[in-house]
Amino acid sequence: MKPLSLPDQMFLLLERRNQPMHVGSLMLLTPPPDAGPDYVQRMVETFEKATVAQSPFNQRLSYKLGVPFWVEDKDFDLEAHVQHLTLPKPGRIRELLSLVGKLHSGLMDRAKPLWECYLIDGIEDGRIAVYSRIHHAMMDGIAGMRMLQKSFSTDPDLRGVAPFWALEKPKREISMVEQVTKPISKAARLAATMKAQAATWPKVSTELVKSIRSRGKDPDFVSVFQAPKTILNQRISASRRFAAQSWQLERFKAVSQRHQCTLNDAVLAVCASALRKYLDELGALPAEPLVAMVPMSLRRDDSDAGNQIGMVLANLATQIADPLERLAAIGRSVQNSKTRFADMTQLEIMNYVGTAMSISGINMATGIAPTWQAFNIVISNVPGPRQTLYFNGAKLEGIYPVSIAMDGQATNITVFSYVDKLEIGIIACRRTLPHMQRLLKYLEEGLVELEQA
Amino acid sequence: MKPLSLPDQMFLLLERRNQPMHVGSLMLLTPPPDAGPDYVQRMVETFEKATVAQSPFNQRLSYKLGVPFWVEDKDFDLEAHVQHLTLPKPGRIRELLSLVGKLHSGLMDRAKPLWECYLIDGIEDGRIAVYSRIHHAMMDGIAGMRMLQKSFSTDPDLRGVAPFWALEKPKREISMVEQVTKPISKAARLAATMKAQAATWPKVSTELVKSIRSRGKDPDFVSVFQAPKTILNQRISASRRFAAQSWQLERFKAVSQRHQCTLNDAVLAVCASALRKYLDELGALPAEPLVAMVPMSLRRDDSDAGNQIGMVLANLATQIADPLERLAAIGRSVQNSKTRFADMTQLEIMNYVGTAMSISGINMATGIAPTWQAFNIVISNVPGPRQTLYFNGAKLEGIYPVSIAMDGQATNITVFSYVDKLEIGIIACRRTLPHMQRLLKYLEEGLVELEQA
Repeated sequence: MKPLSLPDQMFLLLERRNQPMHVGSLMLLTPPPDAGPDYVQRMVETFEKATVAQSPFNQRLSYKLGVPFWVEDKDFDLEAHVQHLTLPKPGRIRELLSLVGKLHSGLMDRAKPLWECYLIDGIEDGRIAVYSRIHHAMMDGIAGMRMLQKSFSTDPDLRGVAPFWALEKPKREISMVEQVTKPISKAARLAATMKAQAATWPKVSTELVKSIRSRGKDPDFVSVFQAPKTILNQRISASRRFAAQSWQLERFKAVSQRHQCTLNDAVLAVCASALRKYLDELGALPAEPLVAMVPMSLRRDDSDAGNQIGMVLANLATQIADPLERLAAIGRSVQNSKTRFADMTQLEIMNYVGTAMSISGINMATGIAPTWQAFNIVISNVPGPRQTLYFNGAKLEGIYPVSIAMDGQATNITVFSYVDKLEIGIIACRRTLPHMQRLLKYLEEGLVELEQA
Repeated sequence: MKPLSLPDQMFLLLERRNQPMHVGSLMLLTPPPDAGPDYVQRMVETFEKATVAQSPFNQRLSYKLGVPFWVEDKDFDLEAHVQHLTLPKPGRIRELLSLVGKLHSGLMDRAKPLWECYLIDGIEDGRIAVYSRIHHAMMDGIAGMRMLQKSFSTDPDLRGVAPFWALEKPKREISMVEQVTKPISKAARLAATMKAQAATWPKVSTELVKSIRSRGKDPDFVSVFQAPKTILNQRISASRRFAAQSWQLERFKAVSQRHQCTLNDAVLAVCASALRKYLDELGALPAEPLVAMVPMSLRRDDSDAGNQIGMVLANLATQIADPLERLAAIGRSVQNSKTRFADMTQLEIMNYVGTAMSISGINMATGIAPTWQAFNIVISNVPGPRQTLYFNGAKLEGIYPVSIAMDGQATNITVFSYVDKLEIGIIACRRTLPHMQRLLKYLEEGLVELEQA
């Protein structure tokens, strides 16, 4: 029996029927050479017979005096969490993405442990897919992706490895911000939340003052007040669409060398090009540039030590037609943000970012000022494994993050690197952003633009 | 733009994440002789190309001053409502029922018209299945079943018939109780609901007095105070399990002739036997008999005219071990209820039933007296088509109702007659009632008991 931390509780409180707060991933695997046509069916049967869910995967929510705790689910039933699905014919990636979009749309049952895993066969090329989702109150997206990988090995001949829910409990990762974990009453919880918010105000005020002072003087400075009103920042429906595709990492590296920019700048520029084209086609491209919130490493040297991650606001320069000018403007705004964050402590950065994000969230939830948001879209770039991985002989071909869309943030782009590829997953509200799967085509066109410029 | 009636609004208000308020049906069909292996895929493609959703299937919810209206969905997207699914191998009915249970569990997206239709292939015997669901605020279960049937014909050679969502708008059926349909404010709505409730109190009070007076004197009288506390009457989770099976109508008819009871008594006795065995196995059989709420025709002659439907409380006599004694007790309690209702007007019956049911509902929702309920289970017996039906040449083999489970009513049994069969559909909360699919086996055993007694 373990109380949820305050941030974890927030993900429960933020959840609504149109805004489920779970994160997911889609994996594509090639079955081992000895796999039969009933490979997935046998795998699911084996899981049901032979695996025992370990903490946290056997933990369900329980409330005591209004405070949520994780308790062991005495009636744990694997069949309710692990399911075999078959893709309908013709079994293209298009049908797979459509299915994942539908699976990702629904709320999970809070009476059970908050995770699900779907093993999908019927893909035309004989590969199989695994879509998993886990509530953000249990685990964040990056931790979830790492958790999945713990069942994988670089050895294609290794067998007998348990799936992620049946592994021994992993060591809890130390979070950057210390979390309040002692049981608290509802009133105390609210007070603590308000206090935590208030504590960040001095630094936020400083940033606000900076924002106002820098306005018009420094064209590369991106303030929390400049994100334009766009269709990306409306209330959303409960329906999701998911789009995903792989690109050769080499192509992005070549672009960054050719144009003397970072790999991350190249990724942002390609996303900016796609968003510009998509919005323009709908007649919804704002005159002001889109602003992206980008979680980013802030390390100042080449060491791997430390975990200095912050988020910067990037000007996506979507008002600029020329791809090279756009790339340059994006690069300058990112550099400007990094320089500013260089003066702040890790905690100050996190609080600043957290406050900016919660203001957006509260703003959309209450409708107090529904036309304002600190940024238009979150674009994450998450480094993944550099070696080819196998699950009991099945080769992991690709792994795509399936993130969260929220009121005010109708889409989210997450980039994941795996061996020699960049895997891009885009989740979006199906109604707010019609035909969003076109973004995949526009991403490719944006990359070609920079390759040829 | 049409405001929702008060009863329809109630179904929106009652809906929670653990208590979706949609009704569904599962149909099994044999494809026509000329159907290829891609029959379902082609059908879905044709639907997407060639059908236009008609009212009410193109209507979504819209709120104006807190009052819900139906408005045309300008962004209607058939792909979000009609979906091709393939059952995973081995494609048994077991896998089909599991899939339907999962599909029935999730909330529908209120931003879109509140219906969905899934066309499912991959069943081992080559049949196909159609699971549809529709929000109770749009249509009740019986109207929904009738709506589905409008696309069907008795002519196996008829082709070119549109699916139910693309038919011309059907005539609105006249409801028995006049409904308030003019736009009202939130406060007025609440007041009207309270007033409607209050208007029924005189009659309800009379019934309560009767209940108290009859206690202990008339062993066949079933009062709204006698339903025992059972595991069927707990709060439920958001997960459903669905079980369904067909029985030859002839077998039930033979039982009713053999034991000189009505067909409905025979159905209730078989359900009672199954519930008794199921609860007993879990160590949860109450010492007092279960009480079932049974919607029933109250016609006093053989005419088809009129629509005299009421609901009676039936004593399921689950404390009695002997099947014939149990059957006799059930028959007497039903007869007793019918006689009582004979003195009441249609409106009084409906109000009485409505109030009894809403008290249970409010009771469970507020937790004011969570251990009291007017009945333990609803068992409906709905007459269906007597001739074999076809949809564009596909033969309808069976049609099973998929009803609603609610807090306090964790399961629901609905019996539907079709040609020479009785089709029984059971929906239940997956957690509150473990392994509820065993009820199917126990129903069969209950029928054999009466055949051999």
